[in-house]
Amino acid sequence: MTKDKLKRTDVNELGEFGLIDHLTEKHQLINASSVKGVGDDAAVIENKDFLTVVTTDMLVEGIHFDLMYTPLKHLGYKSVVVNLSDIYAMNAIPKQITVSIAFSNRFSVEALEELYEGIYAACNFYGVDLVGGDTTSSPKGIIISVTAIGQGEKDKITYRNTAKKGDLLCVTGNLGAAYLGLQLLEREKQIYLSNPGVKPDLEDQNYIVGRQLKPEARKDMIELFAKQDLVPTSMIDISDGLASEIFHICKQSGVGAFIEESGVPIHPDAQMLAIKFKLDPITCALSGGEDYELLFTIDPKDVEKVKYLPDIYIMGEITEASEGIKLHTKGGNIHDIKAQGWKHF
Amino acid sequence: MTKDKLKRTDVNELGEFGLIDHLTEKHQLINASSVKGVGDDAAVIENKDFLTVVTTDMLVEGIHFDLMYTPLKHLGYKSVVVNLSDIYAMNAIPKQITVSIAFSNRFSVEALEELYEGIYAACNFYGVDLVGGDTTSSPKGIIISVTAIGQGEKDKITYRNTAKKGDLLCVTGNLGAAYLGLQLLEREKQIYLSNPGVKPDLEDQNYIVGRQLKPEARKDMIELFAKQDLVPTSMIDISDGLASEIFHICKQSGVGAFIEESGVPIHPDAQMLAIKFKLDPITCALSGGEDYELLFTIDPKDVEKVKYLPDIYIMGEITEASEGIKLHTKGGNIHDIKAQGWKHF
Repeated sequence: MTKDKLKRTDVNELGEFGLIDHLTEKHQLINASSVKGVGDDAAVIENKDFLTVVTTDMLVEGIHFDLMYTPLKHLGYKSVVVNLSDIYAMNAIPKQITVSIAFSNRFSVEALEELYEGIYAACNFYGVDLVGGDTTSSPKGIIISVTAIGQGEKDKITYRNTAKKGDLLCVTGNLGAAYLGLQLLEREKQIYLSNPGVKPDLEDQNYIVGRQLKPEARKDMIELFAKQDLVPTSMIDISDGLASEIFHICKQSGVGAFIEESGVPIHPDAQMLAIKFKLDPITCALSGGEDYELLFTIDPKDVEKVKYLPDIYIMGEITEASEGIKLHTKGGNIHDIKAQGWKHF
Repeated sequence: MTKDKLKRTDVNELGEFGLIDHLTEKHQLINASSVKGVGDDAAVIENKDFLTVVTTDMLVEGIHFDLMYTPLKHLGYKSVVVNLSDIYAMNAIPKQITVSIAFSNRFSVEALEELYEGIYAACNFYGVDLVGGDTTSSPKGIIISVTAIGQGEKDKITYRNTAKKGDLLCVTGNLGAAYLGLQLLEREKQIYLSNPGVKPDLEDQNYIVGRQLKPEARKDMIELFAKQDLVPTSMIDISDGLASEIFHICKQSGVGAFIEESGVPIHPDAQMLAIKFKLDPITCALSGGEDYELLFTIDPKDVEKVKYLPDIYIMGEITEASEGIKLHTKGGNIHDIKAQGWKHF
């Protein structure tokens, strides 16, 4: 820890307007569509012939994240990424974000700078402009609300309700690791709390922990789709777990699904850790959540377009609604998949 | 209170997706630009040749509102209005909102229904569609984050940084009443807390209390401007008090301002109540905030367009930056106006 990190400037020293200026002054707008950024009553965006795609998510301390093991910079990065993931899941390109934060007086200017470092790191990596927001105090903890705005082409935007019987069900990346990362971090937190002398043992699980603390959105996939001239018939991002997302597509499209367990991609590290934690790896993939991968369906005629693409897995097929949502296990059994979703209440 | 109001359904009975469905299912999209509303990864908006204008605000229980005297329906209404006001302040028309709420388990489904009743009442009155959002739990209290999205014409959008020397400084409505309403409500709260037997005495101050609990955004003014073919040279909405907003316009435009105290509109009820509370009415107007009126500048050649318009007051003039921001009091003195802003930290 450098000396600088130990400095603690109270937010009151800057005041509200001073704080906003301080946190945003270095940020340069990069997108032509960002006509006006921070500093007026509203941001102004010019999307011309594109449709405008808008999504918003709120992250609450003590519910969505634990600052005991979440560095503020990672939190800033993740709070942007989870929103961009929703824009990509529309087969659209994010261009702007707004960020509102409410925070208690336990947060110093330096702490907020760290958070914004992460926010800007995500902006830079994904080519997005921060164009507005709000900073205010909260009686307790920190709450971050991000809105992401993107551009989509009318005939390429993909919805959840347009999967058809016979479509192939595909997924990017791998599933379950983010959930296992959370289990690992929670375990170490509990050990630390009962014995603060013990150093956390993350067992060199960099990949797994990274999936939880620093997820990425699949910008690369949307770019691959465009390159291959592929428009999925439906798409959703996996934030609440595969089971929940399949359920959304099936319910909204009025279809069923048949999934091969052997087709569900699980990282070897996740596989190993699940077994160590006495968890079923497929359950982690189905119900874990926070993977921020893309679940999508394609017309069978497009199968050649995805077959040789890296990091895309065909794991099943869309069926009739009456057939339900089924998992064909490696052991040869067929189970109903239940939507679990994510329950914070 | 009807029997129905006494019913308490726990949010867990519906679950997250059930709750969103329950709260949003009755809402019909009314704007052609709202291509896709609630129910996908993101909302889709088609603004064609219009520019897209975006603003966001976060309201935190215990900081921005007190549920002891704020009915949830009013809170829902106000949380929308404060955002629409920012869109109007760009001389643009709001068309969509997203609403994210985090709330503790002390809030029942019925309480959230009341909040959404207010949100929808504002949507209906202002012609706006609810197209997305997020609901989640919070460890304590309720936090509401609203993003408003509107349409503006390129050559009619008004910024803060475009006031010019010689422009006339105008304001709509009247100022200071919302702040006095808050003082009155706070006084009654303190009396009630020290003696719960005493009934609140709001002294028939319906107008004043209404300005605090149920503010309106000046949609009517933006429509008048369009009718008169008037484009202000700069504009801002008054959320933090006249002094703070004048300061923003002057700082960003690189100008000064000269204001006549006699030109600052103050409602007679506010005048009376201020005196009763031993407050200076002009101080309430300058530093009170939450009026959600419009402060704007016009080119002197447009003076005939506003002179006979109802509810618009010319209260001063834009000067050179070196002349500072001055108030010419009724007593004949000239004071510097200091930006007070709103400080929650």
